[in-house]
Amino acid sequence: MSRRRGRLERVPGLFITFEGGEGAGKSTQIARLAQHLEAEGREVIVTFEPGGTPLGKEVRRLVLSPDSHVTPRSEALLYAADRAHHVDTVIEPALAADKVVICDRYVDSTYAYQGAGRALALDDVRTVMQFAVAGRIPDLTVLLDIDPLEGLRRARGDGTGDRIEAEGLEFHQAVRRGFLALAAAEPERFVVLDASGTPERIAAAIADVVEERVR
Amino acid sequence: MSRRRGRLERVPGLFITFEGGEGAGKSTQIARLAQHLEAEGREVIVTFEPGGTPLGKEVRRLVLSPDSHVTPRSEALLYAADRAHHVDTVIEPALAADKVVICDRYVDSTYAYQGAGRALALDDVRTVMQFAVAGRIPDLTVLLDIDPLEGLRRARGDGTGDRIEAEGLEFHQAVRRGFLALAAAEPERFVVLDASGTPERIAAAIADVVEERVR
Repeated sequence: MSRRRGRLERVPGLFITFEGGEGAGKSTQIARLAQHLEAEGREVIVTFEPGGTPLGKEVRRLVLSPDSHVTPRSEALLYAADRAHHVDTVIEPALAADKVVICDRYVDSTYAYQGAGRALALDDVRTVMQFAVAGRIPDLTVLLDIDPLEGLRRARGDGTGDRIEAEGLEFHQAVRRGFLALAAAEPERFVVLDASGTPERIAAAIADVVEERVR
Repeated sequence: MSRRRGRLERVPGLFITFEGGEGAGKSTQIARLAQHLEAEGREVIVTFEPGGTPLGKEVRRLVLSPDSHVTPRSEALLYAADRAHHVDTVIEPALAADKVVICDRYVDSTYAYQGAGRALALDDVRTVMQFAVAGRIPDLTVLLDIDPLEGLRRARGDGTGDRIEAEGLEFHQAVRRGFLALAAAEPERFVVLDASGTPERIAAAIADVVEERVR
């Protein structure tokens, strides 16, 4: 008998985020997990940041426009505005309807990338982000950890990863260390998986973790 | 001999903000003060929030667009992004060049209007704004205080102030109390002037205060 039939009680919503550097395979694993959970009878929505809402697209356009000359503090606040809107209009309503929300990047990406960039004090960025998300912390965060050189090679798929300049590589290594430090600080929320394995093995590991954490 | 000729030493920049409800006469008084200071040989720039930069115009468009359904937290963050950008690209460069910056509304408006609206916790809004302005506090804030009924009557200039609904009036009264409380908490930064007097008398009072505070 399937779990879907056996269960009559309400199953509450679940908020899962995926984090990791370029080429870690987030999109692939998110699609697989969504499929897996849907096969188990859950309603799943997959979303992403930044740009997962119409406002988010506008914010992204503003930040990336060469005319707007957005300064680092202003950029952080625009992304925070996008995040607040995404939480209010996408994530919260879905969780309230007992859906599973899988989000490609969330606050941890902000901390890891800002921390590596060092343009802003991380404590300040945290304060702003805590306001933006209004207490909505993921139930589970899957960190797909990969060596940046390997990740960039995969992401670009054309061998340009080999030619990445030393400064760029150092930045991505700092991002990786940032993610690992965040995971170490909140082991009850994070699971760290080695993203260099096969997609099948990683997908199975994620499914196991979700099963275990949710029960 | 004019002050301009008598002074050889560098005169540092000066940051003056004007606050107050609708119809308090901010625009008139800002124009007069700018003229007065220019006549004394100062370089003056007059600016305003929100919307004083190209990014600010875009932010304003986003917030006011009926399609974007911006939520209160998101709105506060968008305005904070505008403010950060305004500080970085307009206010700081002008102050660094020893100019006088006169700004029509600044953080105090945010606190007074948000406090009256009660959509968000004021402490949170303060934290975000402190990040946005990065420590740039006005040297002087002129609060033009007026009874909201009188102010709205003036601002609309057509007698509709008389017909303002009770709820709207209560809101504007809360905004006024908010401004007065902010002024009471920082008497060394604020000067509160009764805006029901003639423009000439108010302008003279402002010129005196600026003179006195700056020396």
